[in-house]
Amino acid sequence: MRIGVIGGGQLGRMLGLAGIPLGLHFRFLEPSAACPAAACGEVIPTAYDDPDGLERFVQGLSVATYEFESVPASSAQWLASRIPLEPSPRALEIAQDRIAEKTAFRALGIPVARFAAVGTVAEVTDAAKSIGAPCVLKTRRLGYDGKGQRVIRGGSSGDLAPQIAAAWEELGRVPCILEELVEFTAEVSMIAVRGRGAGHTRSSAYYALTENVHRDGILWRSTAPAPCDPSGELDRMARAHVSALMESLDYHGVIGVEFFVTRAGLLANEMAPRVHNSGHWTIDGALTSQFENHLRAISGLPLGPTAARGACAMINLVGRTPLPSEILGVPGARLHLYGKPPRKGRKVGHVTLCAEDQAQLALVLRALEERVAWE
Amino acid sequence: MRIGVIGGGQLGRMLGLAGIPLGLHFRFLEPSAACPAAACGEVIPTAYDDPDGLERFVQGLSVATYEFESVPASSAQWLASRIPLEPSPRALEIAQDRIAEKTAFRALGIPVARFAAVGTVAEVTDAAKSIGAPCVLKTRRLGYDGKGQRVIRGGSSGDLAPQIAAAWEELGRVPCILEELVEFTAEVSMIAVRGRGAGHTRSSAYYALTENVHRDGILWRSTAPAPCDPSGELDRMARAHVSALMESLDYHGVIGVEFFVTRAGLLANEMAPRVHNSGHWTIDGALTSQFENHLRAISGLPLGPTAARGACAMINLVGRTPLPSEILGVPGARLHLYGKPPRKGRKVGHVTLCAEDQAQLALVLRALEERVAWE
Repeated sequence: MRIGVIGGGQLGRMLGLAGIPLGLHFRFLEPSAACPAAACGEVIPTAYDDPDGLERFVQGLSVATYEFESVPASSAQWLASRIPLEPSPRALEIAQDRIAEKTAFRALGIPVARFAAVGTVAEVTDAAKSIGAPCVLKTRRLGYDGKGQRVIRGGSSGDLAPQIAAAWEELGRVPCILEELVEFTAEVSMIAVRGRGAGHTRSSAYYALTENVHRDGILWRSTAPAPCDPSGELDRMARAHVSALMESLDYHGVIGVEFFVTRAGLLANEMAPRVHNSGHWTIDGALTSQFENHLRAISGLPLGPTAARGACAMINLVGRTPLPSEILGVPGARLHLYGKPPRKGRKVGHVTLCAEDQAQLALVLRALEERVAWE
Repeated sequence: MRIGVIGGGQLGRMLGLAGIPLGLHFRFLEPSAACPAAACGEVIPTAYDDPDGLERFVQGLSVATYEFESVPASSAQWLASRIPLEPSPRALEIAQDRIAEKTAFRALGIPVARFAAVGTVAEVTDAAKSIGAPCVLKTRRLGYDGKGQRVIRGGSSGDLAPQIAAAWEELGRVPCILEELVEFTAEVSMIAVRGRGAGHTRSSAYYALTENVHRDGILWRSTAPAPCDPSGELDRMARAHVSALMESLDYHGVIGVEFFVTRAGLLANEMAPRVHNSGHWTIDGALTSQFENHLRAISGLPLGPTAARGACAMINLVGRTPLPSEILGVPGARLHLYGKPPRKGRKVGHVTLCAEDQAQLALVLRALEERVAWE
């Protein structure tokens, strides 16, 4: 069976590594032939919306998927008319537009921060009055790793107009969402998977709730099960929300949904219709990784068990590729490099650690964090 | 860092899958371009002793290794004169010759069955008189999976001559070893690894003793820790023997040593200077797989922890490639296909299972064995 993946970055690479032992073959649609995924499959080196490239890409594929959510809608529609595209174009469409996303969450009773769609400075100004400062202006589309956002705090004078005008210009005068700036005590994510096909292969599975810490808007550390949730209450709530979302979309594949933990409970922030950075710990820390389960789900295979192997953490390697010996000298550290040239702010790999409990994990985590630079 | 692997079979494929996340690149020397390892690296499709192929193979490699022990001695020597070849040509030489192997074991005080080198029918006859029947005649070189052996049982008349003559002819009149046929209660193997380089990177690590069951001379099932060794006494003995062997050879990499369990204790049968089929359970069942530790060892990286995750079993898939859904429907079953066309008696993949204890393992193992054909 040949799987097509739109995108050839590290997520594609890890899908390939998980799928080769299942006897799967991979083809990646990715402009750069020397991409991370090239280590485990064929690359069609064209733009994501090149008709000739798409035609070559689709030949002989059993199913196509993607590893980033900015897939051009036209490409997704075209592919879906030829072969199964999973998760469905509908899920992609929602994830590409913060308004559609928040609206879908709200329609399912999943709590979200107050928000408004805004298309002009006047609309931003009106929305800011009703939502109140501080609030955050985000582009509706193409935001990631904290890019495409501006916080509007309001000054001592209380006059928001200068900040609104500046933010509007900086984001490029594009359709935006204005959101309440949420005061959160922690950020968590739920990685889940739902199968395709009939009977037991359509079932769902959930990974342990993961607590995430960001730096400069980029994920720095994930810990699972989430230390902020000792009772498991947040995990149960997040599962219920993600279950509702997957059922409503008749979703197939892995999904990652990020939540803020607030005094009032969980607020859904965003969803990624794909394998997710905060689920990388599952390669070493769960009985079946998110990558393997995504492939099983979209291929109609039974899902694998998702239970965690003790307490796990993942640290992203950003900006600098460490010497493997630096990392592997930490007992139990598992290294995952992506084969990307290092660049400031770029994710070049990650390290996972598993331990019997959170206390032991904290010890090895400290040893690891001493060796990892962030650039 | 680019690693060269002589051979492009499933062991090469699993080395590649283990090494890509460490940032390693792979090149395989293998006559068949469509080999299992092609999924994770470049293939130089020439004979193992082709000078031009070897020259292309060696370009830019940091270290070379091999995934089968019948590497031509001339190729090994030539490579070792250009770059580090690990494990060393000396280890390869010993593993290629059953007499050298048994002699090396005996010199280190590692118990072996009685044996004699034989080069003519007369020598076989003399040796059989002194060793006694039943005994087994094996070619000194190129035996694997039970090939190249004939048991001499002796008839009711006690006259061994006709059987000796027949065996000698069937094995092709080549230099042989005549061995006592060992009465064993179980077969076990010790997979170990020793690092290259200075200080802590030169240390050794050992996997749990593994109990093996063969069918038609081919490995069928491995279970670790070995159920036949509840006290751990055999494990300790095997470690001591393999430690002596690795130290005496200044060995770098993974080694697999097979033993018979007899009423008198362990008898060493043979060694493989490479990753070993009976160590495949370590991919899912140990904290670091034999494949990753082999790569770490030969690259001078610190070794990873080898502890087992509970009770593990591996079943080889022989002759027929199952549908992935058949296997993955068994809870917790981990599938590893090699991308080889099926053929009677050919290993096309393996499945691993891990459980909390032997009793639980036995339950899932039964469910798995019902779904696995052997052809």
